[in-house]
Amino acid sequence: MSVSRLFVEADLSAGIEAPLDETQAHYLRHVMRREEGAKLSLFNGRDGEWSATLSLRGKKAAVATVGARTREQGTEPDLWLCFAPVKRTRIDFIAEKATELGVSALQPVLTQHTAVERVNVERLRANAIEAAEQTERLTVPEVREPIGLGSLLDRWPAERRLLMCDETGGGPPIAEALAQLDDAARAAPWAIVIGPEGGFAAAELAALRRMSNVTAVGLGPRILRADTAALAALACWQALLGDWRRPTPRLVNDYRTSRLTT
Amino acid sequence: MSVSRLFVEADLSAGIEAPLDETQAHYLRHVMRREEGAKLSLFNGRDGEWSATLSLRGKKAAVATVGARTREQGTEPDLWLCFAPVKRTRIDFIAEKATELGVSALQPVLTQHTAVERVNVERLRANAIEAAEQTERLTVPEVREPIGLGSLLDRWPAERRLLMCDETGGGPPIAEALAQLDDAARAAPWAIVIGPEGGFAAAELAALRRMSNVTAVGLGPRILRADTAALAALACWQALLGDWRRPTPRLVNDYRTSRLTT
Repeated sequence: MSVSRLFVEADLSAGIEAPLDETQAHYLRHVMRREEGAKLSLFNGRDGEWSATLSLRGKKAAVATVGARTREQGTEPDLWLCFAPVKRTRIDFIAEKATELGVSALQPVLTQHTAVERVNVERLRANAIEAAEQTERLTVPEVREPIGLGSLLDRWPAERRLLMCDETGGGPPIAEALAQLDDAARAAPWAIVIGPEGGFAAAELAALRRMSNVTAVGLGPRILRADTAALAALACWQALLGDWRRPTPRLVNDYRTSRLTT
Repeated sequence: MSVSRLFVEADLSAGIEAPLDETQAHYLRHVMRREEGAKLSLFNGRDGEWSATLSLRGKKAAVATVGARTREQGTEPDLWLCFAPVKRTRIDFIAEKATELGVSALQPVLTQHTAVERVNVERLRANAIEAAEQTERLTVPEVREPIGLGSLLDRWPAERRLLMCDETGGGPPIAEALAQLDDAARAAPWAIVIGPEGGFAAAELAALRRMSNVTAVGLGPRILRADTAALAALACWQALLGDWRRPTPRLVNDYRTSRLTT
């Protein structure tokens, strides 16, 4: 039986009882049908990963009794994904895939051509948590409130570089552009910026190109959906600048025999 | 009003009437509410892209009257994606994204741990056609019948290289492994091979590693869903070995102002 892996808010240390929320207790007790003492794995984004066991409380509630630490909290790339909201299935997909691909923050950005103005931030956050639980991340990306592109650029942190997917054409190939960066640029915090369906407006493109730390890149000759462009840029960034440059470690958890999950 | 772009089976040349099938005629007449003479764009995977106009026939049917050629048929990377079938939403997603990312063939592969045995090849093909239509490809990837991994490897073409996503860990980073290939390997036809949820069985991994043209790579420290791994490997391959290495051309069609679509 697979071990359920859960994100919790509580501080984690050996011997404590970590509260589980209603949704988690329901999921474990009534969806997964876990019994008293079932093995769990917990993380909170700060204290590494811990083994734990399920303790039932009454008919509906539960807590996790924390055992030993199984993984240390490591460092992760400081990489934002700034994306224009798209319709429901595709935005769910962006939150899930970007979490798997290791972003540290998801920032919805409203642009002139953004068709979808309302963003369910709680739903995005739930998708990010689920993806982090299933894919053995030790953190959950921060999910931010939507912001207009102008405001985002006005308060842009000076040291953070922008990888701008230039969908108008003429951009240098992504691998070439990233290979030409100097060491300081490679080590900087980054953000990937993706426009909406239909692209950025001309004034928005000009404002992005005026940013001092921007690298505009092309993603090949084909038209891409906005969600595909986001993922493709993330994968290339991880492979060329991020933590995919390190050899992939052997799997450490005894309950996991593959890096591919459902 | 956007121009509808359609994949057709017919040979295309100026002045001919290209048949539209029932689904296409219904879509244009009753979903998009196109009138007689509406502008279309056609491709068949062989003759480039052509402007055309809609000609209604009776109450339900339609043909396309072909005008001038708008794009020449170019060459595309010879890249297969060999993937274990996954459940419905995710397999739709693989067909769509792999088409956008430029694969030439989609090959479902049955493995020891493949949970989904039945593959709706017609549905996969419909997804690939729709993605090709919307993303300005001039071809549709070939969608093959499912095959067992053993049979696939037994009849593997000698010259085709395998990029194997080694989800057990210990694989060299994908960017490093692809950078070390010689010119002959870089120019060869390729296939990306992705295991099922839960990964390949030990004997399958051994059989893959015995292939003469195999390059095993790692995709970073996180656990990935099988569909995420497929996409990420495709994007990295295109960026490092494929046609994303060329500068992205400016957009050629007057009806398209962005490389991002819905």
